[in-house]
Amino acid sequence: MRYFMTFSYDGSGFKGYQKQIKERTIQGELEKAITKINKDIPVKVHSSGRTDALVHAYNQKAHFDLDNEFDVGKLKNSLNSLLPDDIYVRGITIVDDDFHARYSVKAKEYIYKINLGIYNPIERNYVFQYNKRLDISEMERALKYIEGEHNFKSFTKNDSEKENYVRNIIQATLVRDPKNINFITISLLGTGFLRYMVRNIVGLLIEVGEGKIKSEEVIDIIAKEDRTASGICAPACGLYLKDVYY
Amino acid sequence: MRYFMTFSYDGSGFKGYQKQIKERTIQGELEKAITKINKDIPVKVHSSGRTDALVHAYNQKAHFDLDNEFDVGKLKNSLNSLLPDDIYVRGITIVDDDFHARYSVKAKEYIYKINLGIYNPIERNYVFQYNKRLDISEMERALKYIEGEHNFKSFTKNDSEKENYVRNIIQATLVRDPKNINFITISLLGTGFLRYMVRNIVGLLIEVGEGKIKSEEVIDIIAKEDRTASGICAPACGLYLKDVYY
Repeated sequence: MRYFMTFSYDGSGFKGYQKQIKERTIQGELEKAITKINKDIPVKVHSSGRTDALVHAYNQKAHFDLDNEFDVGKLKNSLNSLLPDDIYVRGITIVDDDFHARYSVKAKEYIYKINLGIYNPIERNYVFQYNKRLDISEMERALKYIEGEHNFKSFTKNDSEKENYVRNIIQATLVRDPKNINFITISLLGTGFLRYMVRNIVGLLIEVGEGKIKSEEVIDIIAKEDRTASGICAPACGLYLKDVYY
Repeated sequence: MRYFMTFSYDGSGFKGYQKQIKERTIQGELEKAITKINKDIPVKVHSSGRTDALVHAYNQKAHFDLDNEFDVGKLKNSLNSLLPDDIYVRGITIVDDDFHARYSVKAKEYIYKINLGIYNPIERNYVFQYNKRLDISEMERALKYIEGEHNFKSFTKNDSEKENYVRNIIQATLVRDPKNINFITISLLGTGFLRYMVRNIVGLLIEVGEGKIKSEEVIDIIAKEDRTASGICAPACGLYLKDVYY
């Protein structure tokens, strides 16, 4: 029986998604809870992909297999009662055996939150606090160059030679909160993302907003296919995996 | 020289506002930082009042005295560099010696946040998660009975006999977030508040919303001047000191 679940987490208290010996991780906590339900027979959880340490998720998705058929509503409640309070299973469904939470992904949406206003200690782990002026219109122009199918090698780790770096960004937007003009959210919807790609795009956007890089230069930076051509990496705490589409 | 400051804090990591030996408290952290600036000569911080463990503040206010005259902008920056990242000084001004952060208070505003929707692990320390249906209109009617000058003995700890329990609630409102109908904020503006008063009022409101108590019964509950006549105490994590007025 293949179960497919949607879950949220606060990344602040984890050393990332992926299981690690002796470290508190999201995968580790999920597998511990599901294994308990499975009468201590180990269960592997296959997510749509990892998220890095301190990154949050609203609707992360994963599948896992159990021999027994459970009522999905009861399974959800049992899991939530076993999980720590910084992970929450929002829903579980039963899927076909050929469905795979990672390989069947059609698109993912990430959002990145920036506070340009007064520092709010309550949100310190949930937004990137940035206290310089940013030219928002110039950032919006730069985002338009990010949209489309490109080789995004300039926006990932430089260590892997073999990987295919081409990804398609379907939509890239920047929204100012109408109730708080100093609060901006950058959204990226794409068919796939490389490691650190969103944070590196946001880092470049910030340099565009500061005036260090012109929006048109983003075209050259993409073309260079070289991480050193691009800018800073924005901190993890502002990043959220918003949704995964199949 | 009397300095008056406005500051925010995330109450999650503190054992309340008031200084305690061996416990991490907001007053303790503030006095440590200010004493350091004062060349290790101890400084006492006088706030507008305490907040309990896990309660947050947007605009808490306090005064303290220093022999030296500091530039208030620089003093603010020095303090923020010494303070932990869950406390933030928003502003400092110089005030007359007869101004007192506690005794000069004219009114205070508290807000209480309740999430009736899906549990969000990211907000677990910042809202009260409540998963039963609530009759919002009935709660709003009950709030109208809270407004005005009353003896609020039914809404505080029952142990002190001598205190004056009369307080004036200038305005009591309930607002649903237009973008998220399941998110409600209760605001209480009053000339003063007793210990646990806001949480006890919110607890009673929840019982009204559940239909256990009728809105009109609030009148009798106030009249009884007895804590046992009222309802539950809502958890601390949903409570914020929003502002203090002088």
